[in-house]
Amino acid sequence: MRNIKLSLEYDGTNYCGWQIQPNGITIQGVVTEFLNRLEGEPVTLYGAGRTDAGVHALNQVASFFTKKTIPCDKIKRAINGSIPLDIRVREVQEMPLDFHARFSAKGKSYLYKLALGEIVSPFEYRYFYHYPYKLDIAKIQIGASFLVGEHDFSAFATAPETHSCVRTITRLNIIQEHDQLNFQVEGNGFLRYMVRTIVGTLLEVGRGKISSDEILEILESKNRSRAGATAPACGLTLLKVHY
Amino acid sequence: MRNIKLSLEYDGTNYCGWQIQPNGITIQGVVTEFLNRLEGEPVTLYGAGRTDAGVHALNQVASFFTKKTIPCDKIKRAINGSIPLDIRVREVQEMPLDFHARFSAKGKSYLYKLALGEIVSPFEYRYFYHYPYKLDIAKIQIGASFLVGEHDFSAFATAPETHSCVRTITRLNIIQEHDQLNFQVEGNGFLRYMVRTIVGTLLEVGRGKISSDEILEILESKNRSRAGATAPACGLTLLKVHY
Repeated sequence: MRNIKLSLEYDGTNYCGWQIQPNGITIQGVVTEFLNRLEGEPVTLYGAGRTDAGVHALNQVASFFTKKTIPCDKIKRAINGSIPLDIRVREVQEMPLDFHARFSAKGKSYLYKLALGEIVSPFEYRYFYHYPYKLDIAKIQIGASFLVGEHDFSAFATAPETHSCVRTITRLNIIQEHDQLNFQVEGNGFLRYMVRTIVGTLLEVGRGKISSDEILEILESKNRSRAGATAPACGLTLLKVHY
Repeated sequence: MRNIKLSLEYDGTNYCGWQIQPNGITIQGVVTEFLNRLEGEPVTLYGAGRTDAGVHALNQVASFFTKKTIPCDKIKRAINGSIPLDIRVREVQEMPLDFHARFSAKGKSYLYKLALGEIVSPFEYRYFYHYPYKLDIAKIQIGASFLVGEHDFSAFATAPETHSCVRTITRLNIIQEHDQLNFQVEGNGFLRYMVRTIVGTLLEVGRGKISSDEILEILESKNRSRAGATAPACGLTLLKVHY
């Protein structure tokens, strides 16, 4: 038995997210379907995390077990030759048997991109949240600083979670480059919609609807209704899974 | 009466080219449909040139006459608010009445992009011709040099043309940047499929199927069957129309 790790890049626009589901095409579904054929029997593909519908990835990680002896570069070419061009396998590596794409992950980095200008390029609009409004970036940065560290992020989780909502954000940088505003987020784990809800809430700070200090209150309230809207999926990209 | 010039950017992937046609959605069709509503009567939108199905534009130019007094920036916002996100109006200008997007044009610049690496990014594959083969770039550059200047380009025209096939190419640079090969082409006018047939023929030079010198013979033969295949539309972008 071999344990194979895949590094995947994808444009999530046309997919119902990572995780296999009965009523839609998913990234896990597309790749698994090919692996089933390669293996000749059902394969379980473990993803480092579920990206939601419309969310992109520069480096998602997944792993599966195989009895086949096919070399890694042949697996890579075979998968890329069979799946759509908006999903690419960048790397295939054989790992120790105890490696698990999800349980071995120590953290993740995300990038959320805003286009602040009047017009978004037709070549890039799928990867940006178009937000042509005046923003006070300094206030956003102050608000963001309250979120860094270990906290209970219940207020930024979409549904009431059955497990602990305590997570650690190690980095939350907001950087403007011309008409583009980047939210760089790094942490040991993220609740569903957490990054997008953080972005949506900080945008309300940037527009003066919430004060910077209120971010701390919202966090401490553990009440989702206190936070802002969930920012659209198209702006979000999973950059890296840390092991 | 006012003469209005539009500068348009578009991702041509989902369109049957620039020109209105009965059996498909075109860029001219989408914009004209909106202008008809704005004007309250049929409008003719003159394009600088027809881009083919799947070809992109960074700066296509079109013009139309209007009786309306709506300011240019309002026209811009109105069009962009109504048409799909893969077509954007970058600029709207009022021009002298004798300006005509097509007849006033003195030349055009195109860019043809090849992706030479094993994998093309899921975010960019729509804009590249994936060509992971060994190429002799120096031979391509020598072959290209025979095409610069005023020539009868019949051999690079797809259908027998009823008009003159004499055109002047003022620039044909082939530049490699890492895994990307750019063909920069500039001239006073181009026959249908001419840029793509030049690229397709030069790629055969790069792979050693045609010698560099043969480009001159093909040109002089005025025989389309001597030239190479027409390279795919996705790699081509209209960069600029010169006035």
